[in-house]
Amino acid sequence: MNSPRPRTPGRSDTPRSAPVYLDHAATTPMLPEAVHAMTEVLSTVGNASSLHGSGRAARRRVEESRESIAADLGARPSEVLFTSGGTESDNLAVKGIYWARRDADPRRRRIVASAVEHHAVLDAVEWLALHEGAEVTWLPVDAQCRVDPAVLRAELERHGDETALITVMWANNEVGSIMPIAELSAVAAEFGIPIHSDAVQAAAQLPVDFASSGLSALSVAAHKFGGPHGTGALLLGRTVPCVPLLHGGGHERDLRAGTLDTASVVSMATALRKTVTDLDSRTTELTRLRDRLLDGVASVIDGAVLNGPRGADRLPGNAHFTFPGCEGDSLLMLLDAAGIECSTGSACTAGVASASHVLIAMGVDSRLARGSLRFSLGHTSTDADVDALVAALPQVVERARAAGLAGAGSRGGVR
Amino acid sequence: MNSPRPRTPGRSDTPRSAPVYLDHAATTPMLPEAVHAMTEVLSTVGNASSLHGSGRAARRRVEESRESIAADLGARPSEVLFTSGGTESDNLAVKGIYWARRDADPRRRRIVASAVEHHAVLDAVEWLALHEGAEVTWLPVDAQCRVDPAVLRAELERHGDETALITVMWANNEVGSIMPIAELSAVAAEFGIPIHSDAVQAAAQLPVDFASSGLSALSVAAHKFGGPHGTGALLLGRTVPCVPLLHGGGHERDLRAGTLDTASVVSMATALRKTVTDLDSRTTELTRLRDRLLDGVASVIDGAVLNGPRGADRLPGNAHFTFPGCEGDSLLMLLDAAGIECSTGSACTAGVASASHVLIAMGVDSRLARGSLRFSLGHTSTDADVDALVAALPQVVERARAAGLAGAGSRGGVR
Repeated sequence: MNSPRPRTPGRSDTPRSAPVYLDHAATTPMLPEAVHAMTEVLSTVGNASSLHGSGRAARRRVEESRESIAADLGARPSEVLFTSGGTESDNLAVKGIYWARRDADPRRRRIVASAVEHHAVLDAVEWLALHEGAEVTWLPVDAQCRVDPAVLRAELERHGDETALITVMWANNEVGSIMPIAELSAVAAEFGIPIHSDAVQAAAQLPVDFASSGLSALSVAAHKFGGPHGTGALLLGRTVPCVPLLHGGGHERDLRAGTLDTASVVSMATALRKTVTDLDSRTTELTRLRDRLLDGVASVIDGAVLNGPRGADRLPGNAHFTFPGCEGDSLLMLLDAAGIECSTGSACTAGVASASHVLIAMGVDSRLARGSLRFSLGHTSTDADVDALVAALPQVVERARAAGLAGAGSRGGVR
Repeated sequence: MNSPRPRTPGRSDTPRSAPVYLDHAATTPMLPEAVHAMTEVLSTVGNASSLHGSGRAARRRVEESRESIAADLGARPSEVLFTSGGTESDNLAVKGIYWARRDADPRRRRIVASAVEHHAVLDAVEWLALHEGAEVTWLPVDAQCRVDPAVLRAELERHGDETALITVMWANNEVGSIMPIAELSAVAAEFGIPIHSDAVQAAAQLPVDFASSGLSALSVAAHKFGGPHGTGALLLGRTVPCVPLLHGGGHERDLRAGTLDTASVVSMATALRKTVTDLDSRTTELTRLRDRLLDGVASVIDGAVLNGPRGADRLPGNAHFTFPGCEGDSLLMLLDAAGIECSTGSACTAGVASASHVLIAMGVDSRLARGSLRFSLGHTSTDADVDALVAALPQVVERARAAGLAGAGSRGGVR
């Protein structure tokens, strides 16, 4: 392998000043255009709700951004609600639509959700079950982490009359599987039930068209596609009932109160425009790098198991492996010491020492599941990043296996 | 009057390139230090929940900011929860504490709130009443827009056993009255009831000390003290029960999920540090400018009525007048055309053609109340700003009165 950044195994635990970043699914560096757009607005003044000139200028920036984002996601401007990010968008969609539907018809207390949702959906649904009287159907996934539309149809034939909403993510944040959203939406439409999708991972790497998706609601987060943290959007169809989470000054169709964050909104629109403009070339490049990474890892680690689908059913930038006999956290820390940054799964559950609910739902043995790593590529990724990972991994896996065996031995093998 | 920026009355509707900004209570320009701090972080990568080096670096920035903010507001770091701003902080406190208290004891369904709260509190309380079975006691204010602790005591003697929480703002956003927070907290403590305060306006201009305030929870928003939009904090005592609004990855003591916005948090801490460091000198300067503005307006407008208290009971940067015979929106637009930016009240209700609930609660006649303007000063305000307002106001008021009379005539005087 011709790595431009060769790594000496014996020195692999020396931290480097510029780490190899393979965690773009957790957050990706801001695009320079987005930093520039944001910085320009930061030095202006104006509350977009104020009626004077400075306020109107801020409002104009917000509305131009709304139009741009709508155009890039196949939505109407009035369908774009600005939020503080993916978690808020997911919570607003799931709780807001549940409340609105239950309030209109007290029989509609059921939420149909895939078993592999991000915790922002999962935990919101579980709270509604514990606190707000919701019934939940968790839709199973196949071994490739995809929901079968026939499974949704069968569920709605049983419980359609009592279902408040459906929520299925566009692409899974751990194993990168892409769900058949248009087919799922078509089933939901037959039964007249609103369907939400967490498209936080998808929006960075796939064409996302709200109108043709058939969805009722869709969540995005700016920092996943090169925009700033702390901002996102919920696309919400004009006729979809939704109760606000944040009450106050009547912003955003009375559905999301709070002073609009003009600078972040402008920056998000800029990042999305660049992402959508570059999508074809980026997809090609990410797919090429990702496939090199998959082949490289498979060639140097015996027994490494790829989780999730191959080819077009997988996010271009996602790779996810189980390394039998290893603990994911050990692998992560050893790679970090070698200057390579990745994740055991979702950053939002980092540090939680239990197997991923996603892998469990896919049928992976829970002991095996804990020895998994996600490598996610993005707009700054290079061949050298892939080479560095492939060069460092053998020694890291060897050490983690040794630690795993020692740990298993000292605890009588009960792991 | 020796105005360094004389305004020719006949040309006052020519817009100027740099308007006189008298709307710092709606939002104040970012402090240069805060812009710099934010811009530096924007070009780094790292999700503060990630375990690798970049993630830990982001986490370190967040935690150092948390410590800084805690020190500046008299709180412990663990009491600082980061949110997307004042509206979210208010909603989390009001709804979260209500739910937690009601869940623990179903009799506790009453919310005791001042009648002059910001809409972020007011509308959250009203939603809990409509949707979640809350009973509400609106605490009256006196003519100076202050809640009397004796009134709170009397209410708690009647309804203390069924009260879930109390919420009274630290300083009113429209008329600038400062509430007797320590006394109100002492009464709440006697009855063992959590008390929240919206300190969004106070934190920019008053010493705010969470520990000595006796409050259970306190909301701040960065963009009111020279930090960025879209970020804020809820200070929440460690033992105060609270149900999250946003569920997900278990961030912020499991009370507020969502990827931390490192750049905004660092910028907010920087802005707050500068605000607190400069507080004494700024208070002196704002008070001087404000009093010049009060005297100036009174000297040129016959019948102008100052709303809210005078002296130390008023936010240093706040001035609020009723101009009898005028419509507030007409005044605002005429001043805007003259290059002077202000507000009829809260920016969050701008464009709403009804009298302010704050003025109504203070006993102002609703017809009169509609002819009101707020002028709010901040860190960029100068004598020239005050002079420009005082120079422009006579002709603006004259025009607005003429328009008001014509409007009243054409609608048969029914207003």
